[in-house]
Amino acid sequence: MTMKLSFNTWVYSSFPIWVPSYPIEEAIKRLARIGYDGIEIGAAAPHAYPAYTNTERRREIRKTLDDNGIVVSAMLPAPGGGPGFNVASPSPEERRAAIEQYKEVAQLCADLGGDILLYVAGWVIYGTEWKQAFAWSREALAEIGQAAADLGVTVVVEQNPADGNLIESCDDGIELMRAVDAPNVKLMFDTIHAMYRNEVPTDYVYRMGKDLRYVHISDIDRLPPGQGRGDFRGVVQALSDIGYDGFLSMEIGFNYRNAQPDKFAREAYEYMKPLVDAAGNG
Amino acid sequence: MTMKLSFNTWVYSSFPIWVPSYPIEEAIKRLARIGYDGIEIGAAAPHAYPAYTNTERRREIRKTLDDNGIVVSAMLPAPGGGPGFNVASPSPEERRAAIEQYKEVAQLCADLGGDILLYVAGWVIYGTEWKQAFAWSREALAEIGQAAADLGVTVVVEQNPADGNLIESCDDGIELMRAVDAPNVKLMFDTIHAMYRNEVPTDYVYRMGKDLRYVHISDIDRLPPGQGRGDFRGVVQALSDIGYDGFLSMEIGFNYRNAQPDKFAREAYEYMKPLVDAAGNG
Amino acid sequence: MTMKLSFNTWVYSSFPIWVPSYPIEEAIKRLARIGYDGIEIGAAAPHAYPAYTNTERRREIRKTLDDNGIVVSAMLPAPGGGPGFNVASPSPEERRAAIEQYKEVAQLCADLGGDILLYVAGWVIYGTEWKQAFAWSREALAEIGQAAADLGVTVVVEQNPADGNLIESCDDGIELMRAVDAPNVKLMFDTIHAMYRNEVPTDYVYRMGKDLRYVHISDIDRLPPGQGRGDFRGVVQALSDIGYDGFLSMEIGFNYRNAQPDKFAREAYEYMKPLVDAAGNG
Amino acid sequence: MTMKLSFNTWVYSSFPIWVPSYPIEEAIKRLARIGYDGIEIGAAAPHAYPAYTNTERRREIRKTLDDNGIVVSAMLPAPGGGPGFNVASPSPEERRAAIEQYKEVAQLCADLGGDILLYVAGWVIYGTEWKQAFAWSREALAEIGQAAADLGVTVVVEQNPADGNLIESCDDGIELMRAVDAPNVKLMFDTIHAMYRNEVPTDYVYRMGKDLRYVHISDIDRLPPGQGRGDFRGVVQALSDIGYDGFLSMEIGFNYRNAQPDKFAREAYEYMKPLVDAAGNG
Repeated sequence: MTMKLSFNTWVYSSFPIWVPSYPIEEAIKRLARIGYDGIEIGAAAPHAYPAYTNTERRREIRKTLDDNGIVVSAMLPAPGGGPGFNVASPSPEERRAAIEQYKEVAQLCADLGGDILLYVAGWVIYGTEWKQAFAWSREALAEIGQAAADLGVTVVVEQNPADGNLIESCDDGIELMRAVDAPNVKLMFDTIHAMYRNEVPTDYVYRMGKDLRYVHISDIDRLPPGQGRGDFRGVVQALSDIGYDGFLSMEIGFNYRNAQPDKFAREAYEYMKPLVDAAGNG
Repeated sequence: MTMKLSFNTWVYSSFPIWVPSYPIEEAIKRLARIGYDGIEIGAAAPHAYPAYTNTERRREIRKTLDDNGIVVSAMLPAPGGGPGFNVASPSPEERRAAIEQYKEVAQLCADLGGDILLYVAGWVIYGTEWKQAFAWSREALAEIGQAAADLGVTVVVEQNPADGNLIESCDDGIELMRAVDAPNVKLMFDTIHAMYRNEVPTDYVYRMGKDLRYVHISDIDRLPPGQGRGDFRGVVQALSDIGYDGFLSMEIGFNYRNAQPDKFAREAYEYMKPLVDAAGNG
Repeated sequence: MTMKLSFNTWVYSSFPIWVPSYPIEEAIKRLARIGYDGIEIGAAAPHAYPAYTNTERRREIRKTLDDNGIVVSAMLPAPGGGPGFNVASPSPEERRAAIEQYKEVAQLCADLGGDILLYVAGWVIYGTEWKQAFAWSREALAEIGQAAADLGVTVVVEQNPADGNLIESCDDGIELMRAVDAPNVKLMFDTIHAMYRNEVPTDYVYRMGKDLRYVHISDIDRLPPGQGRGDFRGVVQALSDIGYDGFLSMEIGFNYRNAQPDKFAREAYEYMKPLVDAAGNG
Repeated sequence: MTMKLSFNTWVYSSFPIWVPSYPIEEAIKRLARIGYDGIEIGAAAPHAYPAYTNTERRREIRKTLDDNGIVVSAMLPAPGGGPGFNVASPSPEERRAAIEQYKEVAQLCADLGGDILLYVAGWVIYGTEWKQAFAWSREALAEIGQAAADLGVTVVVEQNPADGNLIESCDDGIELMRAVDAPNVKLMFDTIHAMYRNEVPTDYVYRMGKDLRYVHISDIDRLPPGQGRGDFRGVVQALSDIGYDGFLSMEIGFNYRNAQPDKFAREAYEYMKPLVDAAGNG
């Protein structure tokens, strides 16, 4: 039983920082060369925005993945750009568009061989009550979960206090999961968000236990693990304790206009790989 | 002949930072109350994403504008989110979607009473040559310019070296304008982008002269004017020298997760208003 | 096939910081002792300003080079001092003087056994259009390239956005090279300039390919490689990928009044040498 | 009896930072518009490098000065670029070239109506003894002083510990002046250099007394007066005490790549003008 390492594509894409930006084929080849087992693909231009990615294109990307021996660890939409895709927006048009976008990303994920969809639960606009926003997000998640189930895709709820204000804590995530109560609606967490709240990432691991199906690894300021104050040895130990054998996916560097993406990817890999290997042999 | 002050809505919207985020009615009322003559509306959720904004909604927004005695100084799409809207993308689907989005924003702008559309000229993805990207952007601008002309809207080219890598300098902007050569395709510039290149904003004013139709005001780091090292007295003097009587629009604060939008709006207004008044009476 | 390491002399000279300043013999001996294969000599007092360096003096310098087992990797003029030597200046006298200076430096370079001349493409003075400046620079480069060809010297175009405003990007450099279209007019790039634009140095390597004939190594702020955020492992890997076997020349430290030149030279060498050796054996 | 304000042109020129750079006509017009009585012209491209400035050009510049009601307060060569112009260099060729350059600048100064030439006394290269460098500088100054005398130009010795290592202190300057002992060889000082040594600028004023013929005003870090820790009220008071009625010339901002020259010039003027006026009326 070994955990696997993956890398999120934002820093190689035009989201949210426009450049540097690489075709997805470049990102796939470079991450595979560094040694990653998986790639987490954000559904943003120029990589894999569903509306721009026809059947032939999907086949091409899938082939590049196969040729480079790397798999899709997960997918997620790009929240907050022009269309927002805020499932808790007071605008019914935006909520509907967000739900449809999640469904399209789930389909694209399945087409590329992935089986995990990350759920960014939306955020509260001034004038909306938190409970109302939560209700809208729950409705959305129920519908998305259903559609994903048909595709064999598990939807995992992220907590995001750094950017949002709706599902912020470990308990918020668990509450939303329980409110939907579907076998393919589970949990993930991101070390940077736990630390943003000055909480202890390992607490999240033990608390979520078997419901934890995906993990984002990031040190503070979206730095590679080991370059800030995060306790990643503790996190890997805790994951090992609960028998986690999924992906640890680096979602880092994408907020730096001056990012050198390969450097982020390489340094994160070289720091995490020995920790994960030690846990696998332990 | 007096210059007018406007404020861009990003910091009140979900783009690119999700929160704080306000309904557009709030933004309109608050900016009008501070004293702004105009509001520059970014086409992003939850404010004015064209696909979410039906005829009735447009009428409501227009009414709020009128009731508060404030006009739309300009509109622009939100670049770089999931759909990208990069007119220079190697993806033909993305380029087409970007052009259509610009046209829809032009229509929405006209519906809200505005007559200026900002053109973010796109950015170069790894593997594309600059000249190719420029050619794609020129084609897009020609088509958008034509559509805008029918609506009585002028398209102004922005130079953006801080986020992009295609139209970066004053000369780049002029070259693109000339390459399109249409009576309603003109120029704007943003003081922060001139300073990002360590250039002198007043040089842009004198160089653009009568082709300058819109100005973004921002100090370094997207701070309100007067809080960084920008020479805004020089800029207003230069604008006065060339007989500029359009808007100075503050595009600030939207990169701060901890922004208090009204504070940004108020401080910018209080710094610029006396400068503009003095120039108007001079 | 192994890449070689060189060190630029500015920090040992009176340009642009007056002191500390050493006779060129000192620089040669110290750099050779540290282990450098090459020395890149800037044509500035007190080292090798052509007008001050007669035949006998050239012979002496050449002998010191030979005695210390180190070669001239390249030469370049000192831009921006009193005479400017701006090949894109609106002053015809300055342009002529600049061209003549380049020719004299090419001759001095050949006399000292070197075969690479760096071309700083000039900068745009207020009131000149970029296209005009580009045209002047192209004319100058064509004439300099011809003269260099007779000496067996290759002229390599540098992109310099940190100090200048004419040839700033990878594409600018390629465009200028193509516009001249001569077999001995090629390309170089400096990692610090790529990073100044927040671009990725490895992108420059892959883009330039076989036209890349020289590389300047510098971390941000003219620090030795490894002391900033530069990805020099990535750069060496990319250079290895394209089969580069020329010099990596450190152009660092010359902007520090408090520089201890040997320290800069030693630390840069010790960081780069293992990377280059590993690539050579790979 | 009133002191007059002048502004040094480096920040408008290509020395030592290449850009921003303006034609000298722009600098003249802008400085006159702000209110300056004088302009201190550095002999650097693209402004007034003697070899590039023929008789007709000198006439043009003189006319622009007259038309704008501003006079040349002083001139000086650009030290440290390629040619060095270090009067204390161990290279006899460089020393000779430096002396000739000073003579040419003296001639150009007179042609433009000025009567003060600043003398940067050179710097010590590793391997040269301070006394030897001093002797070379004395010889150079004697020859330059003689030539200047024929033109009605006074040569004033600057102390420069921030950039150099030869004439650093008030006493060093006095010693050099006395060693030459010519009626037109006098003294100046720069507030930034006094402060660089943690000395008190007013001490320099009282110490130099009637031999003080020119003053450079700069706050720390080449900031405009009043923006650092300099005591400029004290300096003006001291100058008033000794009956100084020459120029206070701002030599600021030229080390900033991101300089907005007009801003530096305006802020320095607005800070110093009231101080000087008060002294004039006192």
